[in-house]
Amino acid sequence: MTDITASATGDHQVAGDGRAGRPPPPPPLTQVPASRRRTAGEEARTLVAQTNVATLATLSDDGTPWASLVSYAALDDGSPVLFVSTLAEHGRNLDRDPRASLVVAAAERRKDPLAAGRVTLAGRVTRPSGEIERVARAAYLASVPTAAMYAEFGDFSLYLLGVERVRWVGGYGRMDSADAEAYANAEADPVGEARAAITHLNDDHADALLIMAQALGGYPDAETARCTAADRYGLDLMVGTPRGSAPTRVGFAEPVTEPAGLRAATVELTRRARAAAPVAG
Amino acid sequence: MTDITASATGDHQVAGDGRAGRPPPPPPLTQVPASRRRTAGEEARTLVAQTNVATLATLSDDGTPWASLVSYAALDDGSPVLFVSTLAEHGRNLDRDPRASLVVAAAERRKDPLAAGRVTLAGRVTRPSGEIERVARAAYLASVPTAAMYAEFGDFSLYLLGVERVRWVGGYGRMDSADAEAYANAEADPVGEARAAITHLNDDHADALLIMAQALGGYPDAETARCTAADRYGLDLMVGTPRGSAPTRVGFAEPVTEPAGLRAATVELTRRARAAAPVAG
Repeated sequence: MTDITASATGDHQVAGDGRAGRPPPPPPLTQVPASRRRTAGEEARTLVAQTNVATLATLSDDGTPWASLVSYAALDDGSPVLFVSTLAEHGRNLDRDPRASLVVAAAERRKDPLAAGRVTLAGRVTRPSGEIERVARAAYLASVPTAAMYAEFGDFSLYLLGVERVRWVGGYGRMDSADAEAYANAEADPVGEARAAITHLNDDHADALLIMAQALGGYPDAETARCTAADRYGLDLMVGTPRGSAPTRVGFAEPVTEPAGLRAATVELTRRARAAAPVAG
Repeated sequence: MTDITASATGDHQVAGDGRAGRPPPPPPLTQVPASRRRTAGEEARTLVAQTNVATLATLSDDGTPWASLVSYAALDDGSPVLFVSTLAEHGRNLDRDPRASLVVAAAERRKDPLAAGRVTLAGRVTRPSGEIERVARAAYLASVPTAAMYAEFGDFSLYLLGVERVRWVGGYGRMDSADAEAYANAEADPVGEARAAITHLNDDHADALLIMAQALGGYPDAETARCTAADRYGLDLMVGTPRGSAPTRVGFAEPVTEPAGLRAATVELTRRARAAAPVAG
């Protein structure tokens, strides 16, 4: 359960004055309690759970990589289920060489796609049989209802991707890896992307966000606070202070266990912030 | 300039009663003039022109395929420009092995992603130098403005993908390949996806679409007609007749050369349909 947020500044070789004129964000003025974040495994499982379309990389017969669009389902342990035709190049490739990699990107399109989350799962495919095949087929048909149209075509084969390596990128400077076990055992975040909830918080509860930033987020001098992301463990905020803007985070008392739980967790956080507020809220 | 539309029925091995209960569409009752369609090269260039995000497949150091999200720009000949960090796995991969493949999917999300267009470009990357590097860098920064943030980082390298193979899939049963020359020489369709124009045609000009289907589309018994796609060469229609539903196509007199030209071409088509109408329009 490590905090996997890394600063972009520390990661890249800065040449010339690439970052000139961009002062570091002002530090918090009070202690910020450590708040849990999703692990790379949880981020990966959350991304995999939010859509049914991915890009597959396979090996063509000359050993070159081949990228193609696929639909998928995920089993309970996060293993992706593919259903491809050997009439398509990716189907012939998997038939010949089981090595494959899948990238799943956040379904929500942003102006800057590299600011959004994505995950690469790499491993080997197998053809499931028996009970696993039945489960995989049912999962695929539930995830991709139009597959019923071609489910009986003889050239389509079901594959299970055995995930060996996981690389998650959450946007600029946020990235981490997970191993097969961490991925399989992680749970998708029931809160998901929560764009509607975040918009609601920013539009209708700016006062609550501000007092969270002031009382719990380490910025008693905050003048504005905007929620930039929400997950089962807490809220990411961007605060505006006379010293400049800074990101901070406020953690929920308990992890949210269902989508509807985000509201109660935010109410509890607001209550706690008001109780701790150094100034009247 | 071949017509590359293929029926899904002919492509797949049908087992059992997979297509039972789905009668073939009723044939046209009158001659339908051949109408030009976008070539695979044009489809590919159109997809590449409509977004700046793609999935890249590269080879990891153990020879396994690695899928990752990238932003890109395209040069005038359609060659994709990439700008990646050697701190990222795909950057290290390209640095070691130039073989790569890029899949670009239609930006518009559909309920069934496999019904939408996508194209795979496969080839080898090179590090551009001199004037080409300058042009490639400018194209990338124009396509991905946020790259200015890391353009000066020393670990980022510019790559040009030399496209050797092109595989376009337009949805179920629509697919074709293009070679390097056909891709480089093709032009992106200025009409693009034209979703707004299609919605406008269906919402406000159903009468015009119906008379097109009756007079020019081969279905004088059409009772309804809906536009399903538009391109620089014509409109795809789905007609409803007492004999069932069928797809057809009506071609423009001249290819559309700019986005705004779609309206005039449709007006001309309507005029021509009314003039040819077997019944009063």
